[in-house]
Amino acid sequence: MTHTALYLQHKELLGQAIEALSTRQFFSPYPEHPKAYDPALDTKGKEAFGRLLNENFTQLNQDAATWVGEEVSPLWQYGTGVRYPALAVDTYVSHSAAAAKDWKSASIETRAGILIESLERVRLRFFELAYATMHTTGQSFMMAFQASGPHAADRALEAIAMGVQELTRYPNDLAFSKPLGNYSLDVQKSWKPIAKGIGLVIGCSTFPTWNTVPGVYANLICGNTAIIKPHPKSVLAIALFVAELRKVIAEQGYDANIVQLAPDTVANPITQALAEHPAIKLIDYTGGNAFGDYVESLDKTIFTEKSGINSVIIDSVRDVKAVAQNIAFSVSLYSGQMCTAPQNIFIANEVKTEDSVLSFDDVAAQIVEAVKGVISHPKMGAGTLGAVQNDTTLSRISSQEGEVLLAPQKVENPDAPNARIQSPTVMATDASATVYREEFFGPLVFLVKTENTLESIAVASSLATSKGAITCLAFSTDAGTQAIIEEQMNEAFVPVSFNLTGAGFVNQHAAFSDFHVTGGNPAGNATFADASFINRRFVWVGNRRM
Amino acid sequence: MTHTALYLQHKELLGQAIEALSTRQFFSPYPEHPKAYDPALDTKGKEAFGRLLNENFTQLNQDAATWVGEEVSPLWQYGTGVRYPALAVDTYVSHSAAAAKDWKSASIETRAGILIESLERVRLRFFELAYATMHTTGQSFMMAFQASGPHAADRALEAIAMGVQELTRYPNDLAFSKPLGNYSLDVQKSWKPIAKGIGLVIGCSTFPTWNTVPGVYANLICGNTAIIKPHPKSVLAIALFVAELRKVIAEQGYDANIVQLAPDTVANPITQALAEHPAIKLIDYTGGNAFGDYVESLDKTIFTEKSGINSVIIDSVRDVKAVAQNIAFSVSLYSGQMCTAPQNIFIANEVKTEDSVLSFDDVAAQIVEAVKGVISHPKMGAGTLGAVQNDTTLSRISSQEGEVLLAPQKVENPDAPNARIQSPTVMATDASATVYREEFFGPLVFLVKTENTLESIAVASSLATSKGAITCLAFSTDAGTQAIIEEQMNEAFVPVSFNLTGAGFVNQHAAFSDFHVTGGNPAGNATFADASFINRRFVWVGNRRM
Repeated sequence: MTHTALYLQHKELLGQAIEALSTRQFFSPYPEHPKAYDPALDTKGKEAFGRLLNENFTQLNQDAATWVGEEVSPLWQYGTGVRYPALAVDTYVSHSAAAAKDWKSASIETRAGILIESLERVRLRFFELAYATMHTTGQSFMMAFQASGPHAADRALEAIAMGVQELTRYPNDLAFSKPLGNYSLDVQKSWKPIAKGIGLVIGCSTFPTWNTVPGVYANLICGNTAIIKPHPKSVLAIALFVAELRKVIAEQGYDANIVQLAPDTVANPITQALAEHPAIKLIDYTGGNAFGDYVESLDKTIFTEKSGINSVIIDSVRDVKAVAQNIAFSVSLYSGQMCTAPQNIFIANEVKTEDSVLSFDDVAAQIVEAVKGVISHPKMGAGTLGAVQNDTTLSRISSQEGEVLLAPQKVENPDAPNARIQSPTVMATDASATVYREEFFGPLVFLVKTENTLESIAVASSLATSKGAITCLAFSTDAGTQAIIEEQMNEAFVPVSFNLTGAGFVNQHAAFSDFHVTGGNPAGNATFADASFINRRFVWVGNRRM
Repeated sequence: MTHTALYLQHKELLGQAIEALSTRQFFSPYPEHPKAYDPALDTKGKEAFGRLLNENFTQLNQDAATWVGEEVSPLWQYGTGVRYPALAVDTYVSHSAAAAKDWKSASIETRAGILIESLERVRLRFFELAYATMHTTGQSFMMAFQASGPHAADRALEAIAMGVQELTRYPNDLAFSKPLGNYSLDVQKSWKPIAKGIGLVIGCSTFPTWNTVPGVYANLICGNTAIIKPHPKSVLAIALFVAELRKVIAEQGYDANIVQLAPDTVANPITQALAEHPAIKLIDYTGGNAFGDYVESLDKTIFTEKSGINSVIIDSVRDVKAVAQNIAFSVSLYSGQMCTAPQNIFIANEVKTEDSVLSFDDVAAQIVEAVKGVISHPKMGAGTLGAVQNDTTLSRISSQEGEVLLAPQKVENPDAPNARIQSPTVMATDASATVYREEFFGPLVFLVKTENTLESIAVASSLATSKGAITCLAFSTDAGTQAIIEEQMNEAFVPVSFNLTGAGFVNQHAAFSDFHVTGGNPAGNATFADASFINRRFVWVGNRRM
C-alpha cells in the first residue's frame, strides 16, 4: 500500500479527529470497552502475551549489542523474563540521525497515514497490550486495557490531528504582492515547518504507553525522529506499540529507526546520557519531580509531566454518601498511582447538607466507610485497586505521622494470589500540619481538617502553586463558593471538577476534550495536547524569491 | 464609548487581520507612506515633538518618585532633555498586580477593542513618533516614520489578532456527553484561557517601538499586564505609544497601570531587578546576546530576539550590478543597525553570470562601487544611512583585521550637520579567517572569499547555528543550487531570500506575512508572531460540573 493510499484510507478519521480538537465533544475512535472488540481477541491476546514471556523480544527488529530486561509482574511478584535489544547511546543517536532525513522530507500526509495506520495495527493487539500492562504496572485488567490501548491510541491520534492542524496552518506557496503606487512588489513566498531534530521520550513505570505515545506521535508527525527510553520496570507495553510503528514505517519504505526503543536497567541507566546528548533536541518526560526539574533545566525543548499534589475540597454536599463513594473510588482506583488521583481531602469543619451540618468527623467516617465499601466489594476490590507497581511506592508511604483512620485492609485477587495489593491508608490531620504537604504517590490519602472552605481553598491552591497539581475535585452546593473555588484554583492553573457523581471521576481525562496537565504549575510544563504541544516541536521558516 | 462599542467599531479590522494571519498576503491597515496621511499632520507632529523637548513627559500620567532622562539625539549629538517619571521596581510590580484583576477578567472582545483603539490613537501621532524616533535612534525620517509608526502598529495588530484567534480556539461551554451503553455520562465543561501574570518587556535602543509593541500587545490581549523597560537612550517613541494606551485604558474605566513605562538610567539600571522579581512571569527581550542569554536562563516564560550574523551568499548572478546595488542598499540602510541587515557576504571564487565568470575581486569591486553609489546619491546618502545610534557601536566596529576595500566616506546630512553619520566599512577577508565570525552591529560588512558556493553555505549555516541569524540573502541563477542553499540554511532555521532586486530588500519583514526571527537558532527563541508567541502567555484551564 502506498503512502498516499494509507493517507486516503485514514483521511476521514483524521478529519473527524481534527474537528474534535475544536469542539472538545466526546470523540473516541478506539472504544474503551473490551466488549466492543471481537471476543476472540481476548484469548488470542492472552496467549500472545504468554508467548512473550522469558524470551527475547524480537518484534522490534532493532539491532542489539546486549539484551536487557528486569520487569517484575506486580501480580506474580516474579520476573516476566522478557528481554529487549539494547545499544549504546551514541548508536541510538546515530541511527536516529541517519533515519531523519527521509522522514523530515516526507509529506505531512505521508506521515499522518503511516502514523494512523500504526494505531490501527495496535488496535488488533489491545488485549495483548492489556496483559502486558497488567504484568508490568499492576493495573487491573480493565484499566490496563483502557489506558494502554484505546485511551493511549486516542491520545496518539489527538497528537497526530493537532500536528496536521498546526503543520498545515500556513500556505506552502503564495504569490505575495505589495502595492507600491504605480507598481507592486511581487515576491514568491513559501513556508515550511522544519522539524527540530531527534526527540527523546522518557516513560514512566505506571502508564507506559498513555504517557509516552503523545510525545512520540507528536514528534513523528512534525518530522522529528524519536528515541523512547522506557522505565526499566515497565517496557513491554510500549515495546508492542513501537514494534507496530516500526513495522508500518518499514513497510512504507522508510527507515524503521525513525522510532527506536532504548531500554536500560536500574543498575546502568542511560537516561541522563541520552538527555544530555547534543543531538537530542527535544525531551518529553513523565516521572518524579527531582529528575523532571533536572530535565527542565536542560537547554532543549522540554515537555514534562511531573508529580503533583491533588486536592479534594468538601464545602457542602447534597448527599454525603454519594460524595464519599465518589472520593473512595477515585482514591482506590489503581491504589492512588494515577497522576490525577486525589491525595489531600480538605474538609471544612462544618459541611452543610440539605438539612444538617456535618462535622469533620462525620464526613471522615463516611469516607472511611466508603473506602471500605469499595475495597471489599466483590465487583470492585482488587479489580479497582489493581496492584502496587513496586515496593518503593509502599515504603515511601508507610508510617506517616497523623491519626490512622483506616489502615491497609486485606484484599485478595483470586486470579493472582501473590499480587502486591495494598488498599489506601486513610489518615486524619489538621490543616496546620506539614505531613500532607508532600506528594505521596500511591495508596495514602489525608483527610485534612480546615476551619472553613476558604482555608481549604487557600491551602490547596498554595500547594498547587508550590508543588504542582493536575486535578482538583470540589463539592459545593453553593454557586458563590463554587465560583471562588474555581477562580482560586484556576489561578494556580488547576482545573476543577465539581460535584462528580455516578460514572464521573476526577481521575478521568478524555482525549480530544480534557487537556491533561495545564502546564501552568510545577506538575508539568506541557499539556496533552494543546497547540504548544505541537508547535514547540518544529520551526516555521519562510523563504522568498524574486 | 463603551467597551462593546469599541469592539464593534474595530471588529471588521480585527476580522481582516485574523484572516491575513492565515493567508499571509500583504495586509497593512496602517499605510507605510507618509503621503497616505493628512499633510498637515507632518507639521503638527514636528511641532508636538518640539514641545516635548527639555520637559517632563507628563502624558503617561504615571506616578513619579523621580524624573529620569538621558537621551541624546544622534542627529544633534546633544541631549533632548525629555524626562520620564520613574518609580521603584517594587512599586511598578505592585501597581501592575493591583491593575491585573479587572483586566484578566475583562472579556477578550473588551481587551481587543481597547487595544485596537489605542493603535488608532497612535495613528494620529505617527509623525510625532517619527521625529521622536529620529532623535533617539538616528533613523532617517522615512525609516523612523515607517518602523515606529505604521509597521509597529501592524505588528501590534498582528499580535492582537493572533491573540484573539488563539484565545477563542476552544468553546467557553460545552454539554459534554459520553455514551455508556444504556445511559450517558453528561458533564458540563468550560474552558478558560488564564493569563500568566505580569509581563516585562525590555526594549532596545534602535527600534524602540517595533521590537517592543508585539510583546506588549500580546501580553495585554491575553489578560496579562505589562511593564515596559525601555533602553535608557531610546525612551520617547515607546513613551508616546504607552501614553495613548494608558489614556484609552483609563477612559474605559480600567486601571491605566495595566501598562507602565519603567525608565531607568545607564548608571542605575533596573532591568535585572525587574527580570528577577518573582511576580514577573513573562519577559520579552530585544537586545544583545550576553544579557539575552541571561534572560533565557531565568525560570520564566521568555521571548527573545538577540543578535545574529546574517549572511549573503553570492553563487551566480544575472546582472551583477543589480545584485551589488541590492546588497549595497541593504548594508547601508540605517548603517547596518537593523537586526535583519547582512554582515557577511560570501562570494564564491567563481561567480557565473549569463556570459562570463567573475572573480571574487570583480564582485567585490562592484559591491564597493555600489556602496559608494548609495552613500553619495543625493536622494539616498544620509537619508539611507540615517545616523549611528551611539558611539559604542562605532568603537566596536573600528579597526578590525582584514583588507579595507572601502573606508568610511564623508557623508553629510544638510538638515543635521552635527549628525553621527558613518558609511559602511567594506572589508575583504578569506573564509579561513575568524574576524567575521562575530557579530559587528553597525556599519561594517565583510566580503568573504570562499572556494565555492558549497563552502559559502557551510560557513554561513554553521555560523547561524552557533551564533544565530535572522536572515539570509542568496543570489543564484541555478535552481539546484538554490535548493541546496534553501535546505541547508533552513536546516539552521534561517529563512532565505533569493535574487532580490528593485524594491525588494532582505531587511524587510512585513507583519502578517513574514515571520520575524524563526526562534530556531541563537538569534532568538521567539517569532513575531506565530501561535506560540501568544499561546505561551496564557494557560488553558478546563472545569467540569455535574
